[in-house]
Amino acid sequence: MSSPGPLTGRVESRVRASFAAQTMLATLGASIVELGRGRVVLEMPSDPRFGQQFGYTHAGAVTALVDTACGYAALTTMAEDREVLTVDFSANFVAPAAGERFRASATVLRAGRTIVVTRGEVHAVTGDGKPRLVAAMQATMMAVAPPPAKPDVPAT
Amino acid sequence: MSSPGPLTGRVESRVRASFAAQTMLATLGASIVELGRGRVVLEMPSDPRFGQQFGYTHAGAVTALVDTACGYAALTTMAEDREVLTVDFSANFVAPAAGERFRASATVLRAGRTIVVTRGEVHAVTGDGKPRLVAAMQATMMAVAPPPAKPDVPAT
Amino acid sequence: MSSPGPLTGRVESRVRASFAAQTMLATLGASIVELGRGRVVLEMPSDPRFGQQFGYTHAGAVTALVDTACGYAALTTMAEDREVLTVDFSANFVAPAAGERFRASATVLRAGRTIVVTRGEVHAVTGDGKPRLVAAMQATMMAVAPPPAKPDVPAT
Amino acid sequence: MSSPGPLTGRVESRVRASFAAQTMLATLGASIVELGRGRVVLEMPSDPRFGQQFGYTHAGAVTALVDTACGYAALTTMAEDREVLTVDFSANFVAPAAGERFRASATVLRAGRTIVVTRGEVHAVTGDGKPRLVAAMQATMMAVAPPPAKPDVPAT
Repeated sequence: MSSPGPLTGRVESRVRASFAAQTMLATLGASIVELGRGRVVLEMPSDPRFGQQFGYTHAGAVTALVDTACGYAALTTMAEDREVLTVDFSANFVAPAAGERFRASATVLRAGRTIVVTRGEVHAVTGDGKPRLVAAMQATMMAVAPPPAKPDVPAT
Repeated sequence: MSSPGPLTGRVESRVRASFAAQTMLATLGASIVELGRGRVVLEMPSDPRFGQQFGYTHAGAVTALVDTACGYAALTTMAEDREVLTVDFSANFVAPAAGERFRASATVLRAGRTIVVTRGEVHAVTGDGKPRLVAAMQATMMAVAPPPAKPDVPAT
Repeated sequence: MSSPGPLTGRVESRVRASFAAQTMLATLGASIVELGRGRVVLEMPSDPRFGQQFGYTHAGAVTALVDTACGYAALTTMAEDREVLTVDFSANFVAPAAGERFRASATVLRAGRTIVVTRGEVHAVTGDGKPRLVAAMQATMMAVAPPPAKPDVPAT
Repeated sequence: MSSPGPLTGRVESRVRASFAAQTMLATLGASIVELGRGRVVLEMPSDPRFGQQFGYTHAGAVTALVDTACGYAALTTMAEDREVLTVDFSANFVAPAAGERFRASATVLRAGRTIVVTRGEVHAVTGDGKPRLVAAMQATMMAVAPPPAKPDVPAT
């Protein structure tokens, strides 16, 4: 990404409005920590409703957070009349998701007109301890017209 | 997978106990539809708490369901004293996740002693309509000792 | 893929011409075994020039073959004035690539107007033996205008 | 990766010997630019034998280079009696592979005892120009005993 930096107020408003429209993010308790051009950081608390079989946070919850961070990092580089959809992602889970909260950071590797490629990482954060990497994602995002013309037709 | 087929009662009990221990799955309302050796089908309802910005179900919720299906498909092929962790997955989202419920089907491509490779698909189901593919996953699972010896140490 | 089937002669000609233009495929000794709408099978011989450190065929050579199969499976579903580029892929290597030759089979999971999602598998073939799975791919392909307007500008 | 740094002579020798044993790398004309603990840089020239249909370098050749860089970055973190195999990777192709040569850089995200997670990037290099990103990979590597006990048995 050759030009990270601050967002215009209009782009920031669009991201915040889109974020607020995602009920999944409210359910997860996610919030925006940082918003910049090609750079987004989100957080969510550890929550006993989203556990896996050993009591750690489920990979699906961790994935939801970092997918969202990647999506909005991509959106900040798109034309102002576009919305963003996830085409695909690949995620590695490198340590159990144990911590007080989780922080997902995303950056844009390349911003094309249609396809935007991003990377994200999730760190577990506990007290004053050093954040610990729990997951890494590489995600392909796509600029689409909002809303999709017909809700029952695939948007790609 | 050369030998799909029915499970022993012991393996089925292990999978059902592990499933029941995942609070994420209760939160999503997920249930087991089919359990066989190297083959698992799960379902969850569409739920307004897990929406993305256009009102479709969030990719993170869809991912949680199919990751779980892949994990248990893998577990059915592992030694009986093993548990399963997700090493990584790649998921494509091919249509908006719109439907009354979502069905995730997983099969094992290759069952190694340590690494088990799986594929899964998620279909949206509505009334009597034909199920529609919304996501496809390829996932790498790993057999581990349960529980991890120390909760704060990465299990891989 | 709802409508697999035979290709029109025009589409088959386009695929064969594109295949012939790829020097990589000649270098690998690859050939077309089967061409259908949304379905392509390629083969290449085992070749000592493409080995990894244990003498098996290198993952990069295996990947080149199955990426190509996925790309042409996608191309058969695209509008006739389009060419295909690989956006991304994920590949699992499930057994050493040992055999007399390798056969890559690809099918289309979903054919969108811009994005086509595919899956492919590579089997090792030896004598009259049963083909053995060595790799599995999930790949995202994109329809583009041929040739890219400016060779030095990213095509996405 | 918490402790990048120089390699011991023994580890460097092992990597160089393994590299030299890969005929694929000689065929591609690949060479080692940098070797450190958890960090490897390789290069190969652009070569008309490895072209795709528009004359750019084939994704398979680019993938072979960065997969190799990721594998050796992982190997530098493994116990000294281990070899490395690729479990899986995901790669995004963000720009046409056009240049005089290609440089693949890999780093280790997390070094487990069995599984090592890596990231790599490929840049096209031309004359004195700024290197241009053409591909990004996230790869899962596995420590195995060398050589596999039986060549015809999957090593995982």
